[in-house]
Amino acid sequence: MQEILTQVRERVPLTHCITNRVTINDCANVLLACGATPTMAGAEQEVEEIVSIADALVLNLGNLHDSAIRAMRRAGRRANELGIPVVLDPVGVGASHYRAQAAHQLMEEIHFAVIRGNASEIRVAGGGIGAARGVDASAQDAVTADSLERDIAFMRAFSARSGAVIAVSGVTDLVSDDRRTALIRGGHPMLSRVTGTGCMLSAMTGAFCGAAPDRIFEAAAAACAAMDVAGERAFAKTQAVQGGTGSFRMYLMDEISLMNETILAGGMNIEIRYA
Amino acid sequence: MQEILTQVRERVPLTHCITNRVTINDCANVLLACGATPTMAGAEQEVEEIVSIADALVLNLGNLHDSAIRAMRRAGRRANELGIPVVLDPVGVGASHYRAQAAHQLMEEIHFAVIRGNASEIRVAGGGIGAARGVDASAQDAVTADSLERDIAFMRAFSARSGAVIAVSGVTDLVSDDRRTALIRGGHPMLSRVTGTGCMLSAMTGAFCGAAPDRIFEAAAAACAAMDVAGERAFAKTQAVQGGTGSFRMYLMDEISLMNETILAGGMNIEIRYA
Amino acid sequence: MQEILTQVRERVPLTHCITNRVTINDCANVLLACGATPTMAGAEQEVEEIVSIADALVLNLGNLHDSAIRAMRRAGRRANELGIPVVLDPVGVGASHYRAQAAHQLMEEIHFAVIRGNASEIRVAGGGIGAARGVDASAQDAVTADSLERDIAFMRAFSARSGAVIAVSGVTDLVSDDRRTALIRGGHPMLSRVTGTGCMLSAMTGAFCGAAPDRIFEAAAAACAAMDVAGERAFAKTQAVQGGTGSFRMYLMDEISLMNETILAGGMNIEIRYA
Repeated sequence: MQEILTQVRERVPLTHCITNRVTINDCANVLLACGATPTMAGAEQEVEEIVSIADALVLNLGNLHDSAIRAMRRAGRRANELGIPVVLDPVGVGASHYRAQAAHQLMEEIHFAVIRGNASEIRVAGGGIGAARGVDASAQDAVTADSLERDIAFMRAFSARSGAVIAVSGVTDLVSDDRRTALIRGGHPMLSRVTGTGCMLSAMTGAFCGAAPDRIFEAAAAACAAMDVAGERAFAKTQAVQGGTGSFRMYLMDEISLMNETILAGGMNIEIRYA
Repeated sequence: MQEILTQVRERVPLTHCITNRVTINDCANVLLACGATPTMAGAEQEVEEIVSIADALVLNLGNLHDSAIRAMRRAGRRANELGIPVVLDPVGVGASHYRAQAAHQLMEEIHFAVIRGNASEIRVAGGGIGAARGVDASAQDAVTADSLERDIAFMRAFSARSGAVIAVSGVTDLVSDDRRTALIRGGHPMLSRVTGTGCMLSAMTGAFCGAAPDRIFEAAAAACAAMDVAGERAFAKTQAVQGGTGSFRMYLMDEISLMNETILAGGMNIEIRYA
Repeated sequence: MQEILTQVRERVPLTHCITNRVTINDCANVLLACGATPTMAGAEQEVEEIVSIADALVLNLGNLHDSAIRAMRRAGRRANELGIPVVLDPVGVGASHYRAQAAHQLMEEIHFAVIRGNASEIRVAGGGIGAARGVDASAQDAVTADSLERDIAFMRAFSARSGAVIAVSGVTDLVSDDRRTALIRGGHPMLSRVTGTGCMLSAMTGAFCGAAPDRIFEAAAAACAAMDVAGERAFAKTQAVQGGTGSFRMYLMDEISLMNETILAGGMNIEIRYA
């Protein structure tokens, strides 16, 4: 599935993100780095027109406001009409009733190609009970060896119910539709010491889906794998210069912009399990 | 015209930007890097008061919202009353009717010292037909040798009509009033692989105009040249460390902060053509 | 007081910032770098719920808008009810009547654990007359040897009146309650050539208060000292690579993420004066 990276670079999918102000710059830059083109338009007056020429739409619930919800609903419905894949990142959905309500409204009105978040967010979005504190995943929601079978079953059921590919980031990333699940190992804990790496992954997932709209499962898995490999390589560079989170953040962007099929195929660790 | 950089560092123009949330941090940092002082106030209740003590105003239409339009109208009219130069960056003006309408309203109500954008944006802003997709310039709008004479004529007519200096970024940057056009060669393609380099250039253009309000044409050309030279030098540093777009972005800010008249004069490539 | 840094890393205080869009990403990243966890929720519908699980709240008046003021009032009052320490950063309070009014309303309704800003901002917030131009401190408001005694008296009176610890950043940082004042020397002028270092310090002050809510004076002073030491070390690294403000910004984040009690204790220069 590493060839999807090459397709992103060849097809340059216009990826429309309606996203939070905390990491909006990182999302635009990661889209450029992976070979896509960003548009971050968020005014409800223009999102339908803009999404109409896009190849993918990404809705991110971080730092949510009413005006963003209105824009997301309009853009999402239009994208569905036009067959443009839509990615949902339910950032911090367990942190407030406001976000939970917004997430559920969006999930009722819009068909998502991919729903991607950390373990706590996906549990809440999927109707389970999460233990999130703020926007980070709770340790008790983390995917562990013990919980793996149960987690996979939960994700497949959520996928069957929603029609979306479900992606969970963690020590082992899981990407699942209703019958197959990719287990992606790798990445680095430092990815959670920089804000926005989850948002960036959702943006990239949109770009990968835009470049391969008939292979959503593979696109979501390839985006996760690319972030993991970039994270490992960025950490190695950071360690070589005895840097901290500032250096890591820069090297992460570097590694995504420098990545190609060979690097991705050589670095990624994906196991696929079937039902 | 490289002496205008020194004037920025000596006069420290307070540059008021009403700008988009995607690149607002980059704009503030580039203003500090080039020697100016930023204020990014965007609430309509305060922009008239704040622009009154500013040396320049920059209006950027990226990620536009109604509240920003209201603030821009009030700040722009006040700046005109006070004789403070105003720069317009019509980001993505071809991407939606909403932005096109806002741009035209602003151009009717406010006199701009400089209107700066990529080729597609300037074509739309100037009343031509652009082929933009998202916020990037379309290849068919790019300034080429074949189109150069036509482009210069278009810019001069737009300048005569609007009273603004018109600046277009591309492989060759063009800066024009109604009778002279600066052709600025240089820069590097990597400038378009980092979000916000256009917004940063518009912010710098504001600072340069604020430092030399009686030499708007030269100020706009010098800002373009400074960004080009910084881009070339940043690329050389990036290549030396085999970095990607993350490194380039950091080095670009470095080079602007480290630039002086000697570096700028030595690196810039400007040809001026008269009518 | 350097042990408070270790307490931040051990207790991982959830620090809720309602802050400006210019530097919101920097604030989230500095919180992660110093060992805390950020939440930047700003919708008035959710801030009460979110602050209820937080360890500290930071209200930052930069790039202020009405919706943010409403969210700040609700979050601040709830934090007071729950005994969660609240930090105020009155960014640019002298730049407009709009901000001055907002600051005074917040100071009337909410009890702040710490009020932190540059010399001009604190003068205005404390009821004096500041000479600010934009958001930077005016030279005539700077803390000098001559003015030191008067500044300390002003801060102690402001602290007695407000019940808050008052912190002023400058060449010498001052942190004061009504009877003791910490004079913190160090830092580097380059800290003022990167946007957001003040906002980042306020966010860190929140995190430090959240980790040591019974030692607010020490927490505020330790946060100032940590930023100063990080600034000095970041400048040394920047100089070693002949970098500019882009490099400095990255190294500053590195140094905060790499800091520990030993580095902080070895680098900080604090003198405490009693009434």
